[in-house]
Amino acid sequence: MALNTELVHIAQKAQKAARRMSEVSSDLKNRVLVEMARSLLKEKRLILEENGKDLASVKKKGLPQAMIERLCLDDRRIKGMADSLFEISKLNDPVGEEIKAWKRPNGLMIHKVRVPIGAILIIYESRPNVTSDCIGLCLKSGNAVILRGGSEALRSNLAIYRILEKVARKYKLPEGLISIVDTTDRAAVNLLLKMNDHIDLVIPRGGEGLIREVTKNSSIPVIKHYKGICHVYVDEAANLNMAEEICFNAKVQRPGVCNAMETLLVHKDVAVRFLPHMAKRFKEAGVELRGCPITRRILKGIKKATEKDWVTEYLGLILSIRVVESLGEAIEHINDYGSHHSDTIVTDDYSNAMRFLNLVDSACVYVNASTRFTDGYQFGMGAEIGISTDKLHARGPMALEELTTYKYMIFGEGQIRK
Amino acid sequence: MALNTELVHIAQKAQKAARRMSEVSSDLKNRVLVEMARSLLKEKRLILEENGKDLASVKKKGLPQAMIERLCLDDRRIKGMADSLFEISKLNDPVGEEIKAWKRPNGLMIHKVRVPIGAILIIYESRPNVTSDCIGLCLKSGNAVILRGGSEALRSNLAIYRILEKVARKYKLPEGLISIVDTTDRAAVNLLLKMNDHIDLVIPRGGEGLIREVTKNSSIPVIKHYKGICHVYVDEAANLNMAEEICFNAKVQRPGVCNAMETLLVHKDVAVRFLPHMAKRFKEAGVELRGCPITRRILKGIKKATEKDWVTEYLGLILSIRVVESLGEAIEHINDYGSHHSDTIVTDDYSNAMRFLNLVDSACVYVNASTRFTDGYQFGMGAEIGISTDKLHARGPMALEELTTYKYMIFGEGQIRK
Repeated sequence: MALNTELVHIAQKAQKAARRMSEVSSDLKNRVLVEMARSLLKEKRLILEENGKDLASVKKKGLPQAMIERLCLDDRRIKGMADSLFEISKLNDPVGEEIKAWKRPNGLMIHKVRVPIGAILIIYESRPNVTSDCIGLCLKSGNAVILRGGSEALRSNLAIYRILEKVARKYKLPEGLISIVDTTDRAAVNLLLKMNDHIDLVIPRGGEGLIREVTKNSSIPVIKHYKGICHVYVDEAANLNMAEEICFNAKVQRPGVCNAMETLLVHKDVAVRFLPHMAKRFKEAGVELRGCPITRRILKGIKKATEKDWVTEYLGLILSIRVVESLGEAIEHINDYGSHHSDTIVTDDYSNAMRFLNLVDSACVYVNASTRFTDGYQFGMGAEIGISTDKLHARGPMALEELTTYKYMIFGEGQIRK
Repeated sequence: MALNTELVHIAQKAQKAARRMSEVSSDLKNRVLVEMARSLLKEKRLILEENGKDLASVKKKGLPQAMIERLCLDDRRIKGMADSLFEISKLNDPVGEEIKAWKRPNGLMIHKVRVPIGAILIIYESRPNVTSDCIGLCLKSGNAVILRGGSEALRSNLAIYRILEKVARKYKLPEGLISIVDTTDRAAVNLLLKMNDHIDLVIPRGGEGLIREVTKNSSIPVIKHYKGICHVYVDEAANLNMAEEICFNAKVQRPGVCNAMETLLVHKDVAVRFLPHMAKRFKEAGVELRGCPITRRILKGIKKATEKDWVTEYLGLILSIRVVESLGEAIEHINDYGSHHSDTIVTDDYSNAMRFLNLVDSACVYVNASTRFTDGYQFGMGAEIGISTDKLHARGPMALEELTTYKYMIFGEGQIRK
């Protein structure tokens, strides 16, 4: 009960603070962001000290190396956090943008104007840089933010939070605009997820388990980034040299991320010409190949791909391969097994390209380019808070604009409804 | 189990049908809509017969008069349904609209294009016209629709559905594009609300109870239209004649709808001049007034307004009145007690108007106009599927555009990520 009271207090303060943000100018927000970045650099020692304590206890508990790697901060990573805040200060403020405006026959002027969403709850795992990134993005887009990071990173997150919050206070931003849940009590998340009267949006950032858990328990709208099961389809009319470069890049350039290719689809008429040389390059790069029956007749000795392979995000150097009868079969495979994230066709055929673009039901559909470009920075958004695999509100890379909603401002001269 | 299998089948077919809709032209959709409208008129007898059976069993059960009124169809209402379909056929097709497009330094062309959402589940109560309206709006916006109406209207809904579905089949629209759940088993709704793998969006249309129930149980995103607790604030700088006309219109012109005024806020400096004459007009129109202590000193003999009044959507001829110290207090009252639907300030003061527009956290904020204009038709959208009091995805009146999402189509020439 005490915990719930405390959390309601945080959520209410966030809601109140958010409502006051429409009176804070872009200039002030940008000044605060720049000073936040500078403070991070100035207080580096403190952050590293607290991070050291987190690391020590994680090591004592024998938690996995990957978690330690994500948790660990150093000079370079702190500089990265500060650079992000500098960058965010330079981006256009999305708040106040007029999306549309029109005049009705009765003289009413209707303006559809971009406004902040309100109070946003971010639930994340062990990367401490999420703390400063989310504070920066939410502040710039005029939202209040409530942070709930992984317990293993609590000291690091608190250190970063305190440094940034102090700057917010110095500039007299509304109290409660930036808050952090500093208990490791696991009940806190489920309590927060029911506060739909005060919190407008939840963004879970982390593994599939976290996201499913949040979605299941939340009565607040959630924007999800599940997983990226991305495909490259090499069409019968593909330029095979281009296809090879794109496939290699999509799989190998950074295999541990959501926009890397997990399944390669090849049209049956080019499979014999394309696959052997492609497979040789993949093998040289250490990629394990798993194939459908036809693939395995062409590439002797590779493992069999099972139904499970088509729905697996390997996040590593494994690739499943399927030879398809037609473009239609490729599209069906992508829609049935994919995660609606990013998919590419390599082709020189105009109508095949257009069919693929229209019929593949994914956030990002490409012709003749690597799936690896699905990313807020690569799209030119200057920032990224996640990549939505949802269809509602935001789809694909999410940045400042996706952290806003709109309201209608209507200017009248005494109009009443007849 | 058999029920669940049947419902999964409906949802899967809807999903598959939705994916094929991007190949159906606007021309064909419009032709189908026109023929649907004509079929409704031609088959009027059949609809009225089935509606008669529904009415008979509702009357036998002794259900409330208001429900009978909502359920009852006649020639005029069927003509209204057909007219809606004709109107929808004439509206612009939102699908395919390019929202934005830009070129990246590496030559990638990124196009943000409007596409249908997918499969939409509509859960509604006893108005049979919702059946044809939702089929029309979802068809035009390229979505598959699954209808689940109230059991008391099942025969009417089925009759309308069968007439419209026959037209869809005649024109060879994808099978499963339009479907209806024809069981009265209450378990069906909760089963459908868990099918987030196949259904993209739920829109509940009906009373607050229905909407809360759907929101609580759905693992699919929901767009809600809770209630409309709308305010008019009469500022110290108001033109009091204009204020009187707006208040009267907002309360009395059609009190049973969500955009009618429920609470009147009056600045203390004009309360004595404004309230007595205003109250007289309200009383003549049969409006019951309930007031705060100051209001009751000015308007002797009216009932006391309690905390509960400020959060009640009367949907009838009752009005709560509060005298406020300042614009700030009015804004706070609206944000704390309102439903973020539609609120108006009546003022001739520029900076008060701007503060109200910026600080009131509602879908539609008005200066000097009646709240009654919050409506898809009044906004010029040509249609309406509801009014969202949510902030995510869509806010305020929802029509065809709000039934779409977007995807990124990216055109490359072999680009790979460095």
